Amino acid sequence: MINFKENIGKKVTISGFAEKVRNLQWVQFIVLRCEGKRIQITIEKSEEKNKDMVEIVNNLTNESTICVTGVINENEKVKMGGMELIPEEIKVTSTSYPELPISITDKNAANIDTRMDNRFIDLRNDVNFNIFKVQTEFVRAMRQYLYDNDFTEIHTPKLIGAASESGSEVFEVNYFGNKAYLAQSPQFYKQMAIAAGYEKVFEVAPAFRAENSNTNRHATEFTSFDLEFANINSYEDVMEVEEDLLVAGLTAVKEKYGDLIKELYGVDVVVPTKPFPRIKLQDLYKELNERYGYEIPDHDIGDMNAETEKLTSKYAMEVYGHEFIFVTGFSKAKRPFYHMRKDDVPQGYDLIWKGTEITTGAQREHRYDVLEAQAKEKGLGEDIKFYKDFFKYGCPPHGGFGLGIDRLTMLLLGLPSLKETMFIFRGPNRINP
Amino acid sequence: MINFKENIGKKVTISGFAEKVRNLQWVQFIVLRCEGKRIQITIEKSEEKNKDMVEIVNNLTNESTICVTGVINENEKVKMGGMELIPEEIKVTSTSYPELPISITDKNAANIDTRMDNRFIDLRNDVNFNIFKVQTEFVRAMRQYLYDNDFTEIHTPKLIGAASESGSEVFEVNYFGNKAYLAQSPQFYKQMAIAAGYEKVFEVAPAFRAENSNTNRHATEFTSFDLEFANINSYEDVMEVEEDLLVAGLTAVKEKYGDLIKELYGVDVVVPTKPFPRIKLQDLYKELNERYGYEIPDHDIGDMNAETEKLTSKYAMEVYGHEFIFVTGFSKAKRPFYHMRKDDVPQGYDLIWKGTEITTGAQREHRYDVLEAQAKEKGLGEDIKFYKDFFKYGCPPHGGFGLGIDRLTMLLLGLPSLKETMFIFRGPNRINP
Repeated sequence: MINFKENIGKKVTISGFAEKVRNLQWVQFIVLRCEGKRIQITIEKSEEKNKDMVEIVNNLTNESTICVTGVINENEKVKMGGMELIPEEIKVTSTSYPELPISITDKNAANIDTRMDNRFIDLRNDVNFNIFKVQTEFVRAMRQYLYDNDFTEIHTPKLIGAASESGSEVFEVNYFGNKAYLAQSPQFYKQMAIAAGYEKVFEVAPAFRAENSNTNRHATEFTSFDLEFANINSYEDVMEVEEDLLVAGLTAVKEKYGDLIKELYGVDVVVPTKPFPRIKLQDLYKELNERYGYEIPDHDIGDMNAETEKLTSKYAMEVYGHEFIFVTGFSKAKRPFYHMRKDDVPQGYDLIWKGTEITTGAQREHRYDVLEAQAKEKGLGEDIKFYKDFFKYGCPPHGGFGLGIDRLTMLLLGLPSLKETMFIFRGPNRINP
Repeated sequence: MINFKENIGKKVTISGFAEKVRNLQWVQFIVLRCEGKRIQITIEKSEEKNKDMVEIVNNLTNESTICVTGVINENEKVKMGGMELIPEEIKVTSTSYPELPISITDKNAANIDTRMDNRFIDLRNDVNFNIFKVQTEFVRAMRQYLYDNDFTEIHTPKLIGAASESGSEVFEVNYFGNKAYLAQSPQFYKQMAIAAGYEKVFEVAPAFRAENSNTNRHATEFTSFDLEFANINSYEDVMEVEEDLLVAGLTAVKEKYGDLIKELYGVDVVVPTKPFPRIKLQDLYKELNERYGYEIPDHDIGDMNAETEKLTSKYAMEVYGHEFIFVTGFSKAKRPFYHMRKDDVPQGYDLIWKGTEITTGAQREHRYDVLEAQAKEKGLGEDIKFYKDFFKYGCPPHGGFGLGIDRLTMLLLGLPSLKETMFIFRGPNRINP
């Protein structure tokens, strides 16, 4: 899209939505919205050369799309950036029904379900529209970091023959009369790439979770940004790559959209300093108890819960002035069988940002016999034979992590829910549009 | 991974697979394979300081992984690039079973199904391994072209409530006791983004087709590179963007991997000149008949088939010396309802590369009443109401296309089948690993 300011005095052609058409006695105004930016179009009704245009605008409904050719004029009186477009020609490219099903400007005028039903209108709201401009830049910069560091992109199957590793429920697919499932994560296939000899791999793709829960931070389908790399010495190496990745993403976002994010979402984008603070779970429990009187419930011991995550961010901010914090030292009972253990402690971490877990990362167990013992301990058998085989014929030490980019974007922009954040949300009660 | 040549005389640490361990009377050799590259490790058995290493190598099986610290030495006698690594320390990071299930070097020693069962070994073959190095660069460069042109990345749902547009069969999913389906293409959602006001969008994501057919160029799941953009004048604009996109991708591939592709796959990467040749279907039929005596079967009139595609490439190469050719003027009976028509002719094209169709692109019908009439003509009703609604409240003229990156990579490298090309292939009889 053209930059209005850089084209003052020049003849341009601009296409967009006629957000607001005003027909006054002597003049017509159109607020033209193009990719979330706006310019005023001014038509003097008295001028003979404007006759055809005036007729067009007489019949123009709000949110119709038009293509306008004219000159951009500096005009101090115009509130919209001190510029206006004086048109020579207006072509109507589509006509909107006069009444929209929901308001574009007032998000509170409809409930979230009605807005989701009409997401294609809801996204015309600036706050919603710019989510995907920001997310594009965030993910672009993270990808660029991986390209710069020689990661190979893989595309792993989402249709799988056996229910995969995660404890959560899987969706079942009718596969030519047999049962197949939807992958909950690319975990096993990322590791297959390592066993195949790729040193560093990543994937950005949908993941599916058949969890029948309705929270603000869960969806049945989301986009997962996953990576895995070989020849690490410990999970510390994994944490360092994650630090670099997030710094790369947030630096780019701040540079390109920092001002816009402040203006639209009221959020300061903070590029985190390295290293991010780290704390062991046992020490964390103690700190949260001493500082906030919080006691972890028995059934969550060895793990975190939503409340712990919130307080952990509070702690990180108070003590380190940092938005991020790594938590290590989870209980093996609360971690999957494929995390490497040392002295019985899983060699992994959770990363907490703004009160919410955004990553589980770990060094993986690559020793066949140890892996088999850990799988057995968790009651896993024949279903994961194909996976265990990856470690029989040489597989270097490796680790990795995954990030849900929808959740990441939600936290970045301070949005209240994934329903607000995702292009199209999917939950137990939401499979349309 | 470090560059061996740039580190001659220096002490380095290299990790990789012990591809071939040879234990001679006075010396031990290991061919170390790292990300598809190789270096020889030489250990003089008589030297006292090598005692521990000699013992390690005595027990080292082929394809175990090791981490070696030593100095890279120039040595003319070494066939492998005239260099060797003289180790000071060798650490074994994983031990391979002595017998591999399939050969790494000889692809013909096992049939394709056995190789797919053991894909994590099969990918260690250089020809297979480098597919994803090349594909990463191809897709990276195409993405970069889109970023440079202000495209927004979207992630659209793969779980959908109603079977989508394509004629091919869809997979059914058990969605909390109700029926859902897997998206065959992001078509409707890309267009929703246009209706929401995004000028240019793209998505790279899996697409699913429940076609019970076993050909070399079909898979039940593949990765689709899709884009859509607004404010076009005709499908000519869409063809031009596709030209630019492919030129960007192939230029980058040729620069980074041109020599490797020639060496491993025997293929010259050709960066196509613009404009690509274009021909109307009726003229094409005539040319193929006159030149090659080919007559299109009655049931394919208005369309292409596999044989036509092959001959069309032959024609393009003979007449234009070009690997690509656009074919236009398909029959409306053979095109989906959402393609815009002009004088009853769909405003779209197929793009043929190396004998195979790689894209269907088109200007879309954005006028609600025309779209509704065309949908009705194809017998489509309530299922696509949500889609038709996108065009009720303003939607600019737009068009787009999709590319299957697996097929693209297959054609680029001259591979015989998607089974050879995909990281993990999925077909009617293949849901594992």
